Amino acid sequence: MKKLFPLACFILFAILIFLKIAMVDPLPSWNDTHVKNNILTFVNDATNPSSHGYIAPEKRIAVFDNDGTLWQEQPTAEIAFLTTLIEHKISQDPSFAKQPAVDAVLNGDKSYLEKNPHDIYSLIQSVHEGMPVTEYQRLARHFLDTTRHPKLHKKYTDLTYKPMVELLNYLRANGFNIYICSGGSQDFMRIFAEQAYGVPPQNVIGLTKREKFIPHDRGGDILITGQIIYTNNQDEKPVGIWDRTGRTPVIVGGNVRSNGDIAMMQYGMNNPHSLQLMIVHDDPIREFKYTDSDSIQTSLKNNWNLVRMKSDWKIIFK
Amino acid sequence: MKKLFPLACFILFAILIFLKIAMVDPLPSWNDTHVKNNILTFVNDATNPSSHGYIAPEKRIAVFDNDGTLWQEQPTAEIAFLTTLIEHKISQDPSFAKQPAVDAVLNGDKSYLEKNPHDIYSLIQSVHEGMPVTEYQRLARHFLDTTRHPKLHKKYTDLTYKPMVELLNYLRANGFNIYICSGGSQDFMRIFAEQAYGVPPQNVIGLTKREKFIPHDRGGDILITGQIIYTNNQDEKPVGIWDRTGRTPVIVGGNVRSNGDIAMMQYGMNNPHSLQLMIVHDDPIREFKYTDSDSIQTSLKNNWNLVRMKSDWKIIFK
Repeated sequence: MKKLFPLACFILFAILIFLKIAMVDPLPSWNDTHVKNNILTFVNDATNPSSHGYIAPEKRIAVFDNDGTLWQEQPTAEIAFLTTLIEHKISQDPSFAKQPAVDAVLNGDKSYLEKNPHDIYSLIQSVHEGMPVTEYQRLARHFLDTTRHPKLHKKYTDLTYKPMVELLNYLRANGFNIYICSGGSQDFMRIFAEQAYGVPPQNVIGLTKREKFIPHDRGGDILITGQIIYTNNQDEKPVGIWDRTGRTPVIVGGNVRSNGDIAMMQYGMNNPHSLQLMIVHDDPIREFKYTDSDSIQTSLKNNWNLVRMKSDWKIIFK
Repeated sequence: MKKLFPLACFILFAILIFLKIAMVDPLPSWNDTHVKNNILTFVNDATNPSSHGYIAPEKRIAVFDNDGTLWQEQPTAEIAFLTTLIEHKISQDPSFAKQPAVDAVLNGDKSYLEKNPHDIYSLIQSVHEGMPVTEYQRLARHFLDTTRHPKLHKKYTDLTYKPMVELLNYLRANGFNIYICSGGSQDFMRIFAEQAYGVPPQNVIGLTKREKFIPHDRGGDILITGQIIYTNNQDEKPVGIWDRTGRTPVIVGGNVRSNGDIAMMQYGMNNPHSLQLMIVHDDPIREFKYTDSDSIQTSLKNNWNLVRMKSDWKIIFK
């Protein structure tokens, strides 16, 4: 009997470890609401071969918007980065500072910008034009390393949503291939998406500018031109997803603000089983409060999950 | 001593298995030439952390052209598929048959097509326009299942190059992420690339037509429009690679014919260590013989590997 004691202890210990693992909450920053339950149920079904909601591993494609879905967007980091690009352009061509649009952006003259939307478009075009993608990414990396959010006083990369990062980890652990699909610039998001979300560069789908290859003796440079080929917003999001993955996503996450994510959520409905998560910014204390009409209405109509930051999330930022 | 005999046998057996594994040739369809040696050396260095040619796993991006590099291209399957698309269009709109370009394609009237290149371009545009990508892929699948090559009398998917499929498997086993980068249509290649080469849809980079999303109650369709955004040929290949991967490839394979793959091979030279494979079609007995001037010249100048089908490959087709 005495001899069996260590064995019994070992078995008991193994059972406890097993239960502990089985009980670990994969989404600890989410409150125990029906949204969390819907996510867990969908993923359990998707990975259970005997469930009618089973999804073969190669079809487990999950797509998420970035600004307002995975990190804050008031303002978006890329709009803030525009100032860096303007200053860089002025350092190369001082006369650029004399343009009224430049003055308006640097001094936050909203009324000028609202009256002259075409000027801001030309401005964006000229600060990018002819820049090698490697130089663009160097500037963006420097911006993200050194700039803090004007109101929240943290680096932009410290303003990712903890519940969403947990969700991405949970999906990844269950065999989902995760993509970002955003109206932000692809080359901008790529420099932080891997560290912030575990999403590698090839899984970042974004606004695409025409680029050109200029060969030289030791290889060649990819230069940005001003022309935008895909805005990768609204109706262009499903097209971007198809173009880049050749698949229809089974999980799609986006957020309210400008109806930007409705189309890609709708696209997911082609699958027999799909999960849509529409994030609602309703927490002015911990984050910001803003909305749009269609995103909420369409979500209700289609039974998509409204993720209310105020009640569904225990913690907001990482 | 008797007791040790089974153990000794087991150890001997284990050593033999180990040697057998170590000696298995990963590229049995390649002759033992300097090209094969260059490939093996490059991969051994890339995966050996103590080698100065070591490449971190996330940077092991290998990119290959498709037509003439991974399967035969005389004619390309996609050109042959054009007939199917024309017949499909005629079944929907019989008046389409009356166009002179349609008549010329169906009856192989090369002189008309050479004199009227614009007609053939409009023709390609009109057979694709407004077709859902799912329908396009259904037709393409049917074509590949039922059509045989006019001279080689095999299905197109049975005309992949065995040495190249072995190479892809070998690279994959060594942690390389493999992409196809071709001037062929993305949605065409995607239907066979996974089965033929083990390359999943998201790793197929090709000619990109503008598409649009049309929502309906149960989801939505992606429709092809006639407009080509990227030909993904020549100087556009490095751009396609950057757009889709956000990386610079360390291995690039292409072939002689129309100088189509020079730029992407050149692009690989940005890396401190890169391997370029330029396939030379010099075997009119077992395949076809054709060339171009720049691909050979540029390869010689840059010390890229010329892969001569006649002497470097034991076997050609799978």
